[in-house]
Amino acid sequence: MSKYVFGVDVGGTTVKLGYFDMEGDLKDKWEIPTRTENKGESIIPDIAGSILVKMKQEGIAKKDIAGVGLGVPGPVTDDGTVLMAANLGWNMYNPNKELGELLGVPVKTGNDANVAALGEMWKGGGQGHANMVAVTLGTGVGGGIILNGQIICGSNGAGGEIGHIHLNDEETESCGCGNTGCLEQYASATGIVRLAKKKLADSSKESVLRNEEVTAKSVWDAVKAGDELAKEIAEMYGKYLGKGLANVASVVNPEIFVIGGGVSKAGEVVIDYMKPYFDKYAFPGAKNAKFALATLGNDAGIYGSAKLVIG
Amino acid sequence: MSKYVFGVDVGGTTVKLGYFDMEGDLKDKWEIPTRTENKGESIIPDIAGSILVKMKQEGIAKKDIAGVGLGVPGPVTDDGTVLMAANLGWNMYNPNKELGELLGVPVKTGNDANVAALGEMWKGGGQGHANMVAVTLGTGVGGGIILNGQIICGSNGAGGEIGHIHLNDEETESCGCGNTGCLEQYASATGIVRLAKKKLADSSKESVLRNEEVTAKSVWDAVKAGDELAKEIAEMYGKYLGKGLANVASVVNPEIFVIGGGVSKAGEVVIDYMKPYFDKYAFPGAKNAKFALATLGNDAGIYGSAKLVIG
Repeated sequence: MSKYVFGVDVGGTTVKLGYFDMEGDLKDKWEIPTRTENKGESIIPDIAGSILVKMKQEGIAKKDIAGVGLGVPGPVTDDGTVLMAANLGWNMYNPNKELGELLGVPVKTGNDANVAALGEMWKGGGQGHANMVAVTLGTGVGGGIILNGQIICGSNGAGGEIGHIHLNDEETESCGCGNTGCLEQYASATGIVRLAKKKLADSSKESVLRNEEVTAKSVWDAVKAGDELAKEIAEMYGKYLGKGLANVASVVNPEIFVIGGGVSKAGEVVIDYMKPYFDKYAFPGAKNAKFALATLGNDAGIYGSAKLVIG
Repeated sequence: MSKYVFGVDVGGTTVKLGYFDMEGDLKDKWEIPTRTENKGESIIPDIAGSILVKMKQEGIAKKDIAGVGLGVPGPVTDDGTVLMAANLGWNMYNPNKELGELLGVPVKTGNDANVAALGEMWKGGGQGHANMVAVTLGTGVGGGIILNGQIICGSNGAGGEIGHIHLNDEETESCGCGNTGCLEQYASATGIVRLAKKKLADSSKESVLRNEEVTAKSVWDAVKAGDELAKEIAEMYGKYLGKGLANVASVVNPEIFVIGGGVSKAGEVVIDYMKPYFDKYAFPGAKNAKFALATLGNDAGIYGSAKLVIG
C-alpha cells in the first residue's frame, strides 16, 4: 500500500517539487533550478536526484511511493508525450520512461496549465466539482479543462487553449500565437494594461492612473478606490472575459470556473465585472456555472501533478 | 455472448428504430409514430412493444441482446436523466429503468445530437477518430463533442451547444435561446436565408436569387452556378461558421469536425467557404483539425444510440 506521491512542476527557471500523503496533505515542498542547457538533458536526471535525496532524508522507501507526476510547459498528449517545450529546450519527448527508470516508480506527465487545473479541482477552488475549467489570467491567458475528473488534452495537446478564443475582428495588433483578436490580448495582465492605455488616450476624464505606472494591479486598485475611468476599463475587461468564458461554457458546460493567475490577485472584483457579461452571452442551459478564485497559487502544479498519479 | 444491439432515435413526430450486429452492421430499421399526448407517457411502452414484436418476428432471444440505446431531444446527464424534452412532453425523467424493466435488457440514454455524433464517429464521417466534434447545420445549429470516444454531456446536459457561441455584438434579432448574436443565427438553414435577404437588400447587384424563393438550397445552388452575389453570401456564411468552429477548436482541440444537417447537403462547398476563416481564427496548435461531411444522414441517431450500449 503506497503512502506517498510526488508532484513536480517543471518551469523554465525553477522546478517545484513536493510530496503528499495519499489524502493530498502536502508533507514538504522545495525547488531546484531548471538547467535548460544542452536541450534540457539534465532536467529529468536533476529531478530524479532531488527526489532520491528527499527519500533518503525522510526515510521513504521506493515501495511506499505511488509514483511521480510531472507538469510541463508545452502541449502534452494523453500518453504523456511532450510535443514541444521550448522553455525547457525539449523537442518531442516522453519523460515517463526515463524518469520512471531512474526512480523505479510510475511516472505520469501532463501540461502544466492542465495539471494546475487538476490541482485546483483536487484541493483548491474547484473542490467537489468533477467538471471544471481553470482560467489563468497571467502574462497570458491559460486554461485547463477537467471533465468527469479527467484532463481534456485534445488531439494534439491544445485542449483548453481558451486564451486564444477569437473575440475581436477589429484588432490590429498580433497575439503571441500569431492570430489577432484573441481573448488573451484583453484579459491577460498585459491585456488590461493595453485596454487601460487605450482608454486613457481616448478619454479626457481625470484618473489616478494618469499619475502612476499602469499595471494590472494599479488598475484594479483604482477600481476599488472608486476611480471612474478605471471602472470603465474594468467594464471593458469584464466584457471580453465574460464573452470568452461564455463561449467556453456553451462548448463544455462546466459546473465551475476557477480563476487564478496574477490578475486574479485583485480578488472577487474581477469576477464581479465579468459575471454580467457571462450571464448575457452564455447559452441558457450553461449559465448556472459557478465562479471561484483559485486558492493554491504557485502550488497548484505540484498538487495537480501528484493527483495525476493518484487518478 | 450478445449478438445484437438496438438503437432508438426518439423524435417529436416519429421514433426511428434499428438493430445491429455487434460489429455495427444495420440488420433492419423501421419507424413508429411518437405519441406525445398525456406528457408522452406512451412513448417508452410503444418503443418496448415495437422492439418485442421485432424480436419475435426475427426469432431474437432476450439473451442475444446487448441492450437498447435511446437518443432523446433534450439535455441528458451522464447517468441518462433527461432533464427536459419539451417535444416529447417529458419533464425530468430517466427512461433507462422503465424501458429496462419492460424489456429485461440494459438501456442507455443520451441527447440526440450527442448520440448522432457518436454514430458518425462509429460508422460515419468520423470513423477512426476518438476526438471529434459533430456539427449539425439544420433548422438550428447543433453539436456533439466526443473526446476519447466518450460523449461530453457537460454538467447539466448542455455540453456541445456550439450553436450558441456568441459571435456578433451588433445583432438586434433574438436567437431561439433568448440571446443575441449566436452562431445559429447565421449558420443554420434559417441563418443563411437571413444573411441572403440582408445581402439582397443591401446590394444592387444582379442575382438569380432575386427571381426565386431564397432557401439554403437555392443559395448554395446559386453559389455553385457562379452567381456573384450568392458567393458573397457564402463568404459571410463561411466567416461566421469558421469563426465559431475555430473557437470550438481552441477549447477542445478535436482531430476532426464532421459536418451534417440539411445545409450540409450542399456538400464540400460549405467546407470550402468556411475553412479559410477557421484557419485564420483557430489557435495554431488546433488548426490541423480535419473536416468531413457526415455520411449517415437520418440514421446517425440509431447508429449512435446502439454504440452508446456497446461502449
